[in-house]
Amino acid sequence: MLARKKRLELFGKSKGLNGFLFTSPANVLCYSGYWYDFQTGPSPFQLIPAALLIFADHDPAILLADNEESKSGTVHQGTAIKLYASYTYKEPLMFINSFINEVINIFKTTKIKTGKIGIETGHVPFEIIRKLSNIFPSIEWIDIEPDLSLLRATKDEDEIECIKRAANLADIGQRAVIKYAAPGMTELELFSKVRLEMETVAGTRIPLMTDLVSGNTTATGGGNPRVKKLEKNDLVLSDFTPCLNGYWGDSCNTIILGLPSSAQLEIFEKTKEALNLGLKALLPGVPAYQVDQLMRNHLKEYGEFGHHGGHGVGACYHEEPRIVPYNKMVLDVGMVVALEPAVYKKNYGIRVEHLAVVTSGAPKILTTFHHRFVQ
Amino acid sequence: MLARKKRLELFGKSKGLNGFLFTSPANVLCYSGYWYDFQTGPSPFQLIPAALLIFADHDPAILLADNEESKSGTVHQGTAIKLYASYTYKEPLMFINSFINEVINIFKTTKIKTGKIGIETGHVPFEIIRKLSNIFPSIEWIDIEPDLSLLRATKDEDEIECIKRAANLADIGQRAVIKYAAPGMTELELFSKVRLEMETVAGTRIPLMTDLVSGNTTATGGGNPRVKKLEKNDLVLSDFTPCLNGYWGDSCNTIILGLPSSAQLEIFEKTKEALNLGLKALLPGVPAYQVDQLMRNHLKEYGEFGHHGGHGVGACYHEEPRIVPYNKMVLDVGMVVALEPAVYKKNYGIRVEHLAVVTSGAPKILTTFHHRFVQ
Repeated sequence: MLARKKRLELFGKSKGLNGFLFTSPANVLCYSGYWYDFQTGPSPFQLIPAALLIFADHDPAILLADNEESKSGTVHQGTAIKLYASYTYKEPLMFINSFINEVINIFKTTKIKTGKIGIETGHVPFEIIRKLSNIFPSIEWIDIEPDLSLLRATKDEDEIECIKRAANLADIGQRAVIKYAAPGMTELELFSKVRLEMETVAGTRIPLMTDLVSGNTTATGGGNPRVKKLEKNDLVLSDFTPCLNGYWGDSCNTIILGLPSSAQLEIFEKTKEALNLGLKALLPGVPAYQVDQLMRNHLKEYGEFGHHGGHGVGACYHEEPRIVPYNKMVLDVGMVVALEPAVYKKNYGIRVEHLAVVTSGAPKILTTFHHRFVQ
Repeated sequence: MLARKKRLELFGKSKGLNGFLFTSPANVLCYSGYWYDFQTGPSPFQLIPAALLIFADHDPAILLADNEESKSGTVHQGTAIKLYASYTYKEPLMFINSFINEVINIFKTTKIKTGKIGIETGHVPFEIIRKLSNIFPSIEWIDIEPDLSLLRATKDEDEIECIKRAANLADIGQRAVIKYAAPGMTELELFSKVRLEMETVAGTRIPLMTDLVSGNTTATGGGNPRVKKLEKNDLVLSDFTPCLNGYWGDSCNTIILGLPSSAQLEIFEKTKEALNLGLKALLPGVPAYQVDQLMRNHLKEYGEFGHHGGHGVGACYHEEPRIVPYNKMVLDVGMVVALEPAVYKKNYGIRVEHLAVVTSGAPKILTTFHHRFVQ
């Protein structure tokens, strides 16, 4: 059994839960292997794409919209796949009822009629719990979202492999920026070339969170690419957060299209030093805030950067362990962390980022591209 | 007052509702003007990006995550903008509590403590209604999602303008396919060029639902572009559904990279005829199923195409009036409808689509590109 499933089981026992009903993309993926593509927003043919039901002493079941069935190949062995009617043109859409009826059927199979079920109250649609409460009035629905976020912080080998593949896409993106960025092209033109290289390796379209901005706008820390031409001596800040099969990668680099001022060069080197200090500190037993502090202190002469020093990465692009000033969470083997120290001046900003996994020894860096400021 | 807001108000009165709490992207946009970008999935810093509260005898209020504030410029005048705390690196994320507290504050301002509030039970997260029910135990939460879908079917002028701009992007995409598609390039390479042209005109990245497939795969009706090279005499099926400022466009074309067989040419012409028959029938008073039937009958010698004949388009890419065999909904002035008749053979498929608005006279076609099979 995967370590994360074992942890979830133990957690459930410790809280006296009879089972779990997961509906958020991250938790469904983490505990079932199933992911869906959210690039075009909520589907008009689904209540939700998938729900995962895990019960003590029963096999888990995943309930998928039947127009998602072709993507069921990634579901873990031992998890039963159930379908609910989603798209049809022959009769009115009835996906809400069809979903609810199937969930009720799954509950009935388990004969669980009372006790506590852990849910994500901030995600599960009201209708699902309302209907289930009507049928099973003795079941108590317990919010475990905060616990899940902690349980997910440590990754299994299969997850680290997935994140590594997404990190490879981020690398490809950063190398493409260095290869293609030149004065005269628009940010969107550069982005188009970069994304094509990433999607070609992925073999398909991928969700891709992006900062890709040039010139003064780098001072704001990022934003989507625009129809703005790159100019000579512009800085270009590129932060790519691609999602492959549900798992995310993350990386950031800043380059200059010309010759840097001595101040810019100094800041870039100092920011890279901060990143390296942070990476070296990614050891089991170190509290998250210390990693943040190390990087922040190293750059304090340039003013504080107004965001996290880093964050966990996995089935969500920002999760525990958050590398932030308040976080006493202690790093452990298998946590995957992105560090992204930065300096923002009035007219430009410089940020560098790597993604690494905490091991029993030195951290293993998952993004392999080389941060290079001057081309 | 916009006609759609007036309709909503009258609907609320007829149902005895004291107000509405909307959380889905489509209804928030329709009644507030606010839209958000969902390309990278749910945000780890938000419960939901926005909720819209509309009460009888009070000004409406929209509650936005404070990291969405920069996008509040599109909110309709007269709608109060309230913010809840979302992203922070200085303390633990508390967005669920922060959202709920602000919603409670807004309710308290209205002094509404009893009666019925219309909600989208299939969308609103359980936590929101659970907490509100604790504070306001006498409020009854009524599901009005099916009604909203009907209320949204007729568009106001401002919405038609938005859809027109999105339709223009779809046109640009179709023209780009005709311009660039050539044997030897991959589907993803073609897609990259097409998307760049669309995003350059949009000025930014846009959500873009896409079928872009070649060769035998056109027989399946579509799919995302792959690392598959276009070959001589391949058919290329391109269906672009871009979203601009929350409103969608839609269009489809099929081209051949070479010379068609006489059967292919005949089917293309027949499919275009079916589309034109459908478009001509988009008149007030015509029931939706008749439009579907006209197109389906015209193509029946080639076997039935296994999807809708068309659908409404607006703040959602598939909504009422669904142009499907069962739908007795009667077309009316201001409805925006995409029609997409198709023929699928064993080795290839041909589909053409236009987007049009029903007027008191002939429908106005919003997509202006010319369907052209042979280049």
